[in-house]
Amino acid sequence: MPKILVTRNVGPEAMKLLQATPFELIVNPEDAEPSREWVLENISDPEVVAACIMHGQPSDKVDAELLAHAGKGLKVISTFSVGFDHIDVKAANARGIKIGHTPGVLSDSVADIATMLVLMTMRRVEEGIALVKSGGWPHLPWAPFVMCGPGMNHPNLTIGFLGFGRISECVVDRLLAFTNKSAPPRIVYNSSRARDNQAEIDAKFSQRWGVDVQRVEKDTLAEQADIVIVLCALTPETTDAVDAAFLKKMKKTAVLVNAARGPIVNSEDLNAALDAGELFGAGLDVITGEPHIAPDHPLVLNKRCVVIPHMGSADYDTRNAMADLCVRNAIAGAEGKALPAEVKV
Amino acid sequence: MPKILVTRNVGPEAMKLLQATPFELIVNPEDAEPSREWVLENISDPEVVAACIMHGQPSDKVDAELLAHAGKGLKVISTFSVGFDHIDVKAANARGIKIGHTPGVLSDSVADIATMLVLMTMRRVEEGIALVKSGGWPHLPWAPFVMCGPGMNHPNLTIGFLGFGRISECVVDRLLAFTNKSAPPRIVYNSSRARDNQAEIDAKFSQRWGVDVQRVEKDTLAEQADIVIVLCALTPETTDAVDAAFLKKMKKTAVLVNAARGPIVNSEDLNAALDAGELFGAGLDVITGEPHIAPDHPLVLNKRCVVIPHMGSADYDTRNAMADLCVRNAIAGAEGKALPAEVKV
Repeated sequence: MPKILVTRNVGPEAMKLLQATPFELIVNPEDAEPSREWVLENISDPEVVAACIMHGQPSDKVDAELLAHAGKGLKVISTFSVGFDHIDVKAANARGIKIGHTPGVLSDSVADIATMLVLMTMRRVEEGIALVKSGGWPHLPWAPFVMCGPGMNHPNLTIGFLGFGRISECVVDRLLAFTNKSAPPRIVYNSSRARDNQAEIDAKFSQRWGVDVQRVEKDTLAEQADIVIVLCALTPETTDAVDAAFLKKMKKTAVLVNAARGPIVNSEDLNAALDAGELFGAGLDVITGEPHIAPDHPLVLNKRCVVIPHMGSADYDTRNAMADLCVRNAIAGAEGKALPAEVKV
Repeated sequence: MPKILVTRNVGPEAMKLLQATPFELIVNPEDAEPSREWVLENISDPEVVAACIMHGQPSDKVDAELLAHAGKGLKVISTFSVGFDHIDVKAANARGIKIGHTPGVLSDSVADIATMLVLMTMRRVEEGIALVKSGGWPHLPWAPFVMCGPGMNHPNLTIGFLGFGRISECVVDRLLAFTNKSAPPRIVYNSSRARDNQAEIDAKFSQRWGVDVQRVEKDTLAEQADIVIVLCALTPETTDAVDAAFLKKMKKTAVLVNAARGPIVNSEDLNAALDAGELFGAGLDVITGEPHIAPDHPLVLNKRCVVIPHMGSADYDTRNAMADLCVRNAIAGAEGKALPAEVKV
């Protein structure tokens, strides 16, 4: 009897889909990360044809060790995530194992968090919360401009994106509901390289939103943007894309939001730039070294920086949709069919 | 020489407008709240024809005491705020003193904060920030639904407003950029009383936004709304509008945001309801007793409640626009002209 391995309960709805198949299920009995040994032992079962794995569980790392243990029948590994930096895709493919992931379904959810972080950062909410919690509110001398930040309704803002995929487009949809109607913003973005038909692409974007949209070089983006939003994939090229040189070029009144992957923004450089007043504030859903972030991490202590624990896709509908796609990738692969969402590298 | 009293420097741009008038200025020399004595002494100057006052300064309360001190020449009191619960308008009007305020100019800014609090509350950001700051992130066991909250993209949300003035309309503009396009939300609101042409009014709103908009009774709103946003004026009728009975009727998955005035939501009842799981979370820009909120205030300690220190209008453009309107009200009143924005009760 062919089997599907599930390294973590994926919720009642997606589990029902699995139970409705003819496949036997091997499910981690605990609602906790299994041991690496449990994963390696079960994936070596020659009857296991598909495996649902997690991004957030180090036990599920798909490396040479895991692939060496994989049974001969294994056809697909399906990760509960859009990112696949925990999977050696090439090595898996070389062994004839397809990799499934969950793109698309979390765009809205991550765009919500990115937009929220823009608002929180411009309006100094980290500082505001800290003031209340420290008992400082009663002693805050009221004044016309106390605790003020730049506003979203400011005329002719420039909004910059590092990476301009589907999530960035969703963020544009949202931010345009906040920005000044009579003096609308301009959108600039940087993507890995300019296309041959770049002007045509940008004209289409501009028409779609009714505001000027333009691909620019990274330095131009740093210099011009009032809001910088990082939403590119983590690659060797994008690692430290936001470094001391980038930050130094930013406007003193500008804010930075990272809702992609931690290492795209250099933490030491960001902290130094915030302390030097080179930018107004930063909002991070992700940070290098997560989740091993100590409470005395300089960016956690920095009052112009808000750090939240990678909650971009953490809403019930989104996680259910991810579970659904993860399970459908596994079932399709187990049945020898094309995956609804296969990672192609 | 007729004089204008200014109880707090209102920023360089607005001060310039005052300096360009023929009026002599009496300006509080400190960038701090003046003493009550200073206000009472100066307002009693028979040559003072106009006064610019602050909402956030208890020294500036316009009550029987202040009106008894007011000089005979006083024609206008102009408050740097849209709210005027610190002013006895009827008594002032009875003395022939007009009251100016600053409506309209802060709608966008407050709507930004209200929308941000909706997102923060649904997505458990208070809890997320606290987790990072307490060093809990490394020990958070990852799981598919850990730290999840309800999502803005959930199909067929019901969004409810207590008070449906200009700020609420701005919030609708923003929230519709986040909500589900194929299963759009429904908007319900409660205003002081149903109008004769209520159906016509609601049809116009529905047409404007392309979603169903309807005035409902308060109980219906409490029962049906997934998101409750308080944006009504504070009056004897709206005091404690959100009390134990209201909260008990709310959905367990719903969130509450107050961006109006603290006493509209009963703090004790809210805290008990959050602890009992009667609603999912709350976001407060305002709270009864502010700014005298201790760090051990139950709502400050409650991890399902985020409290920020009344920052609704705290962006530079907005505060400058408020200063401008406040000063223009004072100058117009001093000149015996109609105020750009007079409080009518």
